[in-house]
Amino acid sequence: MDFDHLGIATPDAAGLAALFEELLDAPVAHEEEFDGMTVVFLELDNGYFELLEPHEGGAIGNFIERRGSGIHHIALATDDIEGALSTAREAGIELIDEEPRPGAWGHEVAFLHPKSTGGVLVEFVSH
Amino acid sequence: MDFDHLGIATPDAAGLAALFEELLDAPVAHEEEFDGMTVVFLELDNGYFELLEPHEGGAIGNFIERRGSGIHHIALATDDIEGALSTAREAGIELIDEEPRPGAWGHEVAFLHPKSTGGVLVEFVSH
Repeated sequence: MDFDHLGIATPDAAGLAALFEELLDAPVAHEEEFDGMTVVFLELDNGYFELLEPHEGGAIGNFIERRGSGIHHIALATDDIEGALSTAREAGIELIDEEPRPGAWGHEVAFLHPKSTGGVLVEFVSH
Repeated sequence: MDFDHLGIATPDAAGLAALFEELLDAPVAHEEEFDGMTVVFLELDNGYFELLEPHEGGAIGNFIERRGSGIHHIALATDDIEGALSTAREAGIELIDEEPRPGAWGHEVAFLHPKSTGGVLVEFVSH
């Protein structure tokens, strides 16, 4: 599978986007309001940073409250999320999403439960 | 910059490697003992997962004790670490490594302090 993006929880997406653009030469590729968050994608040469700024609470707000801002998840690209979820089920992985659902930027996404994957929150994403 | 690898702290690199190989079709590309850790690189189509299993304490052991196993850092590849560090200094970023130092797999690496980068531990790496 391909690295697609790193999800980062932050209370200040605009500020962090400006910093990473300067630091990593990673310009803003896309920005939208999605699911109670401001979501900003920064473009690397072979993938993205996805900055997630919650407007209030929710999973990302709770994450920031509990652990502070920082890396939230890793997203891997596949053309076949259903197949990837089947492989995960066969491997005994607990799924957060049994079926793909709409994500930011018009993507289809599905998350695996981190307790099954060494504490790493893995997202499958299809563009 | 290019995504290079995701650093993952784990008490069981072999077990997690087997799981990710099955789940993500990410075979072991390299394994070594480095700096008191077993380090295993799993190959994605455009980068790596770096599994870090500490033998005792150290930064990674402390991380696992404090936060549990999971994502530890993000590494971005550059041919010019010195230049990247200069850019970081100019951006007001606190550096963990003022100069590149030897990392696993014969790479040169330098880390930025996460308090300067939204809680994200960023590594610059040159192969």
